[in-house]
Amino acid sequence: MMTFTELLKNRRAIRDFQLKDVSLDIVKEILKESCLAPSASNGQPCQFIIINNREILKKLSDESKKNLLQDFFKNPASLNPAYEARMKDENFNVYYNAPCLIYVIGSKSVSSLDVDCALAISYIMFGATQRGLGTCWVHLGSNIRDQKIKAEIGMPDNCRIVAPIIIGYPKEIPAASERHTPQILKIVS
Amino acid sequence: MMTFTELLKNRRAIRDFQLKDVSLDIVKEILKESCLAPSASNGQPCQFIIINNREILKKLSDESKKNLLQDFFKNPASLNPAYEARMKDENFNVYYNAPCLIYVIGSKSVSSLDVDCALAISYIMFGATQRGLGTCWVHLGSNIRDQKIKAEIGMPDNCRIVAPIIIGYPKEIPAASERHTPQILKIVS
Repeated sequence: MMTFTELLKNRRAIRDFQLKDVSLDIVKEILKESCLAPSASNGQPCQFIIINNREILKKLSDESKKNLLQDFFKNPASLNPAYEARMKDENFNVYYNAPCLIYVIGSKSVSSLDVDCALAISYIMFGATQRGLGTCWVHLGSNIRDQKIKAEIGMPDNCRIVAPIIIGYPKEIPAASERHTPQILKIVS
Repeated sequence: MMTFTELLKNRRAIRDFQLKDVSLDIVKEILKESCLAPSASNGQPCQFIIINNREILKKLSDESKKNLLQDFFKNPASLNPAYEARMKDENFNVYYNAPCLIYVIGSKSVSSLDVDCALAISYIMFGATQRGLGTCWVHLGSNIRDQKIKAEIGMPDNCRIVAPIIIGYPKEIPAASERHTPQILKIVS
């Protein structure tokens, strides 16, 4: 079992995966652990949809890309222009060809939903790392709007996607991207 | 060094602390680790203010309570009524008499600030646990509005407090509050 220092080192954003599938039992174990994350007033609002079918993942990727491009044409400020070419590239899969995806979702009415889910997601990331898996929070993959597709994946109308987390066995663990030292503005002693 | 399983077990919301102070060096180590957390486009927007002076902590607690009560009188829906008596209780310290507090803050202009900080905060929580320390995200303690007090703690005008995280040596590690099993709405295979 990894120590915390090893977890810190090995928890990296993974965007390149082995072909190997991820067992649903392992994903369920990881999600069970994530329920130990703290949440505002112990509200535990996180809900999950697991997709581990590559064909459907491709369809979801296309749906998200289509909507991102539509938004971009209406309002160019909605997308970093660096992503435009990728969104137009038929071969680019917004989920980086990961074998498995977890949509972390929750009720639109929960005001603390984003931070509650983000805390649980860090548990998912560490839990995956602990098991030799890699993850990445793919914000570009959260634009699922087609009602038929939403029904197909079981996305309730009162919920929204906080984060699509891709998960799979990394081809390699990349070095950490550059980090600055902690920005401590003041110490009041 | 703790394993991940031990971290999961020992990372609890701590609201009852030993009198023992927390070394600033340890807090800095923990904050340095938190910089390894992922953030949207690696923007690393988290900034920190450390308060480890009990007198100032009391003053900050009073400021936050005063503002919460003012909001509550204007709009009773702004506060869970269960907290009203506590906010009026002179002896109640919203930071639970912790010896140290970290305000996790960031620029108001960063759209992903809440989730970026929440991810870093989970690193802070695990890093503290790893060192025998306990933490709690005390949302009620985030209402610091007085300009003089903000200047005193070095809070820039363009920033907002995402979370006050108290930190100290726990009197005990309480059992986990009740958790439900993961709410997996659908598995699409």
